[in-house]
Amino acid sequence: MSRPPLRIALLGCGTVGSEVVRLLHGSAEDFAARVGAPLELAGIAVRRLGRTRDLPVDDALFTTDAQALVERDDVDIVIEVIGGIEPARTLILSALSSGKSVVTANKALLAEDGATLHLAAEQGGADLYYEASVAGAIPLLRPLRESLAGDNVSRVMGIVNGTTNFVLTRMDETGAGFAEALDEATALGYAEADPSADIDGFDAAAKAAILAGLAFHTRVTAADVYREGITEVTAADVASAKAMGCVVKLLAIAERDGDAVSVRVHPAMIPRTHPLGTVREAYNAVFVEAAAAGQLMFYGRGAGGAPTASAVLGDLVAVGRNALQGARGAGESSYADLRLRPVGEAVTRYHISLDVADKAGVLAAVANAFARHDVSIRTVRQEGHGSDASLVVVTHTATDAALQATVEELRSLDSVRAVASVMRVEGQP
Amino acid sequence: MSRPPLRIALLGCGTVGSEVVRLLHGSAEDFAARVGAPLELAGIAVRRLGRTRDLPVDDALFTTDAQALVERDDVDIVIEVIGGIEPARTLILSALSSGKSVVTANKALLAEDGATLHLAAEQGGADLYYEASVAGAIPLLRPLRESLAGDNVSRVMGIVNGTTNFVLTRMDETGAGFAEALDEATALGYAEADPSADIDGFDAAAKAAILAGLAFHTRVTAADVYREGITEVTAADVASAKAMGCVVKLLAIAERDGDAVSVRVHPAMIPRTHPLGTVREAYNAVFVEAAAAGQLMFYGRGAGGAPTASAVLGDLVAVGRNALQGARGAGESSYADLRLRPVGEAVTRYHISLDVADKAGVLAAVANAFARHDVSIRTVRQEGHGSDASLVVVTHTATDAALQATVEELRSLDSVRAVASVMRVEGQP
Repeated sequence: MSRPPLRIALLGCGTVGSEVVRLLHGSAEDFAARVGAPLELAGIAVRRLGRTRDLPVDDALFTTDAQALVERDDVDIVIEVIGGIEPARTLILSALSSGKSVVTANKALLAEDGATLHLAAEQGGADLYYEASVAGAIPLLRPLRESLAGDNVSRVMGIVNGTTNFVLTRMDETGAGFAEALDEATALGYAEADPSADIDGFDAAAKAAILAGLAFHTRVTAADVYREGITEVTAADVASAKAMGCVVKLLAIAERDGDAVSVRVHPAMIPRTHPLGTVREAYNAVFVEAAAAGQLMFYGRGAGGAPTASAVLGDLVAVGRNALQGARGAGESSYADLRLRPVGEAVTRYHISLDVADKAGVLAAVANAFARHDVSIRTVRQEGHGSDASLVVVTHTATDAALQATVEELRSLDSVRAVASVMRVEGQP
Repeated sequence: MSRPPLRIALLGCGTVGSEVVRLLHGSAEDFAARVGAPLELAGIAVRRLGRTRDLPVDDALFTTDAQALVERDDVDIVIEVIGGIEPARTLILSALSSGKSVVTANKALLAEDGATLHLAAEQGGADLYYEASVAGAIPLLRPLRESLAGDNVSRVMGIVNGTTNFVLTRMDETGAGFAEALDEATALGYAEADPSADIDGFDAAAKAAILAGLAFHTRVTAADVYREGITEVTAADVASAKAMGCVVKLLAIAERDGDAVSVRVHPAMIPRTHPLGTVREAYNAVFVEAAAAGQLMFYGRGAGGAPTASAVLGDLVAVGRNALQGARGAGESSYADLRLRPVGEAVTRYHISLDVADKAGVLAAVANAFARHDVSIRTVRQEGHGSDASLVVVTHTATDAALQATVEELRSLDSVRAVASVMRVEGQP
């Protein structure tokens, strides 16, 4: 191994960054063999010096001046694990424009402004890799970007947020309500003190944008993604799903139909026998349908220091090999330039639970409301009596717009006391 | 797109080859955009001319002289989907040695003589890609070779043969015996007229060798793989598995322990709650455990013309991009050079079913036999009476050698009428 080392600047040294340092140190010989040259840390940018970090590196490597570190002539590759938009964007752009390849786990930035980053990579002749930004350790972006590059993907449907999957798994297992299950997730460290990014679906939406862009060779930003979180999911919804042989999951869905794509994040019921129906706790999984390949699923840990570091280092090996050859990996592929379809045009099935008056003619009135909006009913179940009477309707596929109009009309019916819940149903019937 | 086209020689035009032609033709513009240059078929080598093939290509492209086609100056990339050892090996070596990159689906050849092919690729400065050789359309080799290149894989365990999984699924669902389930698989086209390659585990063993080599950065050939097929699996085994909450699967397992690897293919019971326990029909799935990434699973269609063609074309896009840059993808990584551990040293749990005499002292005699070989018993279940009396023993982990010695001794016991079945138990207890 007579090659000079490749020198790495690490930006950020939290949970993921620390794990990157440990793995680089612990498997240094493996990395040298796999890349074709030793990997060497040139510096580690942190917010504050002097914290005890218990890492196997010289203290002199730490600096608070990330910008200066990125600009150093002896840095070949930059790893960004700070997260957030700034200063991450400025630092990454600075690296790429000077021809330094970047490995990042930054889903928020990629989903907000991926096009700018990709352009800078192109112009700088550098690589931009971000496997760790979606579904942690699960190799997902590389398969989409490379393995399926010879196929046409029609649909990507995933459980890409571990916190919400943990909460929904608990609700399914114990019958708990949302608040109670969230408390448990917080106590066990699966949810942040401020859980909004997870439970309101922002995290999943950023990942959905990245997946959709790669799957369909087009540009999608987080702002393009229709988004509903799980805060409105009730114990009754979960029980209804169970009665249908389904389970409630927060799904990130990207679908292509002709020259349009629809990208959305929302809770939905899916059959327990669907491959995604068996994904429990904080695990992630992404289900892909492609014209030739058929159905595929990728499953694993979606978060955590070590799994995320594994993805970062896989990218680092690829980028390092490219650097030694003076080559670039696959850059952005956005040639398809597809139209984004509003959520109103999205087509799926629905589960609607209505509190109704216990009298003759209710079913007819309800059925008429569905018929007037061309929403075809698949099953109806009447439950309870008197003030507990309810109707549970499952539809055939319909557009979101037609369903919303139906629900509007149902709300206006005298015999309907309340529309207790409306939830999408995904997966094969 | 002013780049001149990349010219492709296709060797073989059966199920997979025909699908490759159709997809290349049907998505020509997509391929041009994704690769950066048009892909153009230079010729198609077949065994016999004049067959009606109903393909969207000029008849003049077909030739029976594969060797001449490979050697043509206007060929940039060779796709080999003939299968088998010769003439595939000679043709691939000829292409690689003249610097033409090769995409192949040939698991038998890779597993028998991968080292020779990789060396030729290295010397010719060409790429050798073979995603389609294992688990059809499931992106698996690229994730192992690239995404997990920064991690340390400890174990790969997969269902990599669709025929046997179909047979075992039927046995599980209907209680049918092996022969009956195989007949059904044959009638439905899931098994070949001569099913030996599948049911005796040869196909799975070749794939296990390829997976083990990539996962552990070492060389493994099919001959290194311990192999048992599913012909001895009985309806009683499947029922016993069911009673334990397990299902019988033909597993390909590659494990690393220190500087040794063990690679084996055999039927085993795994819990129904294990991710592999839910893989049914002709689907394939591979479960990977890595130090940092944790547990991952890849799931999808393992065979068929279109899924295999999807994998071939994904490789073709990668190889094409490399060719335009004058770069090479990751070549063979065999630096670890690990020792191959004989199956006798492999450690797992066992399910042993004994036909026993219905008299006092049987359990003590049996327990003594296990104890003498240091095989610890986890559970014992006594069933039936008189001539139907049986004992079902599940062990804690033990070496294969210790278990075989125990079984030998059990056979010699007066109170044991027969050792009805011995099956490994995999997955967490």
